[in-house]
Amino acid sequence: MKSLLLVAHGSRRELSNKEVRRIGQQIENIAERNFLSIRCAFLELVIPSIPEGVEQCINDGAKTIIVFPYFLSAGRHVSEDIPKIIKEKQQEYPDIEIKIVEHMGAVTGMADLILQHILEN
Amino acid sequence: MKSLLLVAHGSRRELSNKEVRRIGQQIENIAERNFLSIRCAFLELVIPSIPEGVEQCINDGAKTIIVFPYFLSAGRHVSEDIPKIIKEKQQEYPDIEIKIVEHMGAVTGMADLILQHILEN
Repeated sequence: MKSLLLVAHGSRRELSNKEVRRIGQQIENIAERNFLSIRCAFLELVIPSIPEGVEQCINDGAKTIIVFPYFLSAGRHVSEDIPKIIKEKQQEYPDIEIKIVEHMGAVTGMADLILQHILEN
Repeated sequence: MKSLLLVAHGSRRELSNKEVRRIGQQIENIAERNFLSIRCAFLELVIPSIPEGVEQCINDGAKTIIVFPYFLSAGRHVSEDIPKIIKEKQQEYPDIEIKIVEHMGAVTGMADLILQHILEN
């Protein structure tokens, strides 16, 4: 009963937000039955907000929510803002496990993926 | 005679800039002889700037420079600012080929990498 919440910054350019949702959709296409639901939420400017995204996952029936910060570097948003918001939601829902995993920039395999991308282009 | 220039935004948090340089280093570790040099440059706040990064690649002896925007979404920086800077350098060095490849967020395989990361954590 696990949901994935992809958390991005949010942009005034709707195209940027669409890119985030597209990645969410692509993950959904390959995730098979690993997740009850895969949702996107945004730190700023765009809805759903992170608290709203958490609520959506809970409404989906999730007992565990994996929060994935879709950020390349662990700036203030990743190291402070997102954990603070998640901590508040965790206190509101003590029976739900809400777990933040490492942000995009720290994912093992990024260098390989970049090299492959560049050599193919 | 090809160099790779990894272009990131640049942050006031030095840790964020270090993450970019670490990715550059990781690519260098696996790139074997595909590149003459692999360098990082920053759009704002941090040196080397993008023009300086291009100069470094040329000083390395590059005849082709592959510019990789290390950004998750094609906001204004990716769609306007970086191309504008590169266009100016291209006019300054007509004998060098400077090529911008698609930004990180558009790289095929991102969804697979994210899913793998999340399932392993």
